[in-house]
Order: sequence, then structure tokens, then C-alpha cells
Amino acid sequence: MTVATYTVTGMTCGHCVSSVTEELTGIAGVTDVSVVLESGAVTVTSDRELGLDEVEAAVAEAGYELVG
Amino acid sequence: MTVATYTVTGMTCGHCVSSVTEELTGIAGVTDVSVVLESGAVTVTSDRELGLDEVEAAVAEAGYELVG
Repeated sequence: MTVATYTVTGMTCGHCVSSVTEELTGIAGVTDVSVVLESGAVTVTSDRELGLDEVEAAVAEAGYELVG
Repeated sequence: MTVATYTVTGMTCGHCVSSVTEELTGIAGVTDVSVVLESGAVTVTSDRELGLDEVEAAVAEAGYELVG
């Protein structure tokens, strides 16, 4: 199991959290997504190592930006 | 045709605008809803006079608050 935390900017409300969660949950192997709106911290649990590009693409698809 | 503009607080993003628009569009007789996120101005066009209580209820259902 792999757990990684990313920072996402631009989320302003619960709908934004839902959008990001939904897109990240759609990545193959992702088993859990946890978002803290206030800090932009997004923790992704998966059963394989995820590529940063995959995570970045999912966040972008939701309409937000991955920092770092 | 009746056109009325209300002020709604708490909307922070396009998702919020969509939620408010959807709820207001669901009121019987409403033919158009226009929202300006930045100011919170919500303009509702309808084919009958709407009660403030109806508008207030729809906005609350979306999770936001009508001012005034």
C-alpha cells in the first residue's frame, strides 16, 4: 500500500473537494482519497506507486493545480 | 414576465453557482437564472411573481444564504 500527500491549489468549497476526490479516485489502483480544503492537502492511498504525472493530470482534469 | 435580482452569500466557485442556478431553475415558473459569482447577484426571470420565501428556500437548499 502506498500513501502520498500532495498539495492542490484553487479549491474553495466542498464541491471542489468532491471534484478532486472523484478524479483521483478514478486513477487505477487508488483506494482512498482524503482532502483537507483549508490547507489543500490531498492524501492518496493506492495499491501501487502512482506517477506524479497521473496525479497531476487527474487534479488538472478536476480544474485545479498540483503544487510541486 | 418578472425579473428580480437577489444577493446570495457564500458562493465561492463555479460549482456553487451551478448549485444555486439548479435549485432556482427548479422553481415553478422560472425561465432563466443568471449568477454573478463575484458580487453574489442572482437574477431570476420568471413567468409569474415569485415569493421571497420560495427563492430563499431554493437558495438554502443549495447550501447558501439569501441576503435581505
